[in-house]
Amino acid sequence: MRLRFLWPGKTKNPELRGVQDLYRSRIRPLADIEIVETRAARGLEEKHAGRIKELEAQGLERHLAGAYVICLDERGKEMTSGELARFLRSRERDSGTTLAFVVGGFIGLAERVLEKADMTIALSRMTFSHELSRVMLLEQVYRALTMVRGRHYAK
Amino acid sequence: MRLRFLWPGKTKNPELRGVQDLYRSRIRPLADIEIVETRAARGLEEKHAGRIKELEAQGLERHLAGAYVICLDERGKEMTSGELARFLRSRERDSGTTLAFVVGGFIGLAERVLEKADMTIALSRMTFSHELSRVMLLEQVYRALTMVRGRHYAK
Repeated sequence: MRLRFLWPGKTKNPELRGVQDLYRSRIRPLADIEIVETRAARGLEEKHAGRIKELEAQGLERHLAGAYVICLDERGKEMTSGELARFLRSRERDSGTTLAFVVGGFIGLAERVLEKADMTIALSRMTFSHELSRVMLLEQVYRALTMVRGRHYAK
Repeated sequence: MRLRFLWPGKTKNPELRGVQDLYRSRIRPLADIEIVETRAARGLEEKHAGRIKELEAQGLERHLAGAYVICLDERGKEMTSGELARFLRSRERDSGTTLAFVVGGFIGLAERVLEKADMTIALSRMTFSHELSRVMLLEQVYRALTMVRGRHYAK
């Protein structure tokens, strides 16, 4: 199974970046993983939200072709960890397909990216920072893969 | 408002500990915060779950007297970030009371600790590691306090 995690801009917070690297290294023995940090819109204030989303959508869309696209969005479907594991298991049968998990930047995702999603999920009813959301997603996918592979979850 | 965060054992993962320290330092200008890492049960295998919870309950209970106790539990109530902010604002009027947020260790909380809770909340329908849950809780409380105080959320 190929997993691609996509988001605009490098994770800047050094502590969260450390956690991101940790979960990537835990996932690597369990699945083919790549994290693609696409171009982030820079130098634009928050009031230009539409323009920021538009610019970031261009970078993200280059990596979606042929993939099964899963966007993170607060309006998405909430799942349990077990449901995510069952979903990954079902997708694994279709082993040629890349799963692309897409997380927005600090403004969120453009509608046109959300429209390309095969599935939209929410990690919580709460709003977490976009950088913490990346880490939460990686931890959940790692957890789900340990279930699918019958491996011990490293605490 | 006094906030007490309670959990058994130090956060061992150095990256997550870094994130924990970061959010503590962000909360500090907004509220009186203490993190109390109580005694963790050591040297007991996971099969002794009942005994682990029991030992850890003893450490946690020493810090609950007089506080309004909020336990994290998967069966708890899910809230939005806005609902958490409104809750904190309502408790703040009762300024003498400490809010004690309790997060279990890797086995979870003993029933007798859960029974002492004035409120039980879930951060998500998903199961996150106990150390990541601590960080998620701190981030949400920081976010809620920026709403209550009308401050900018530091990204």
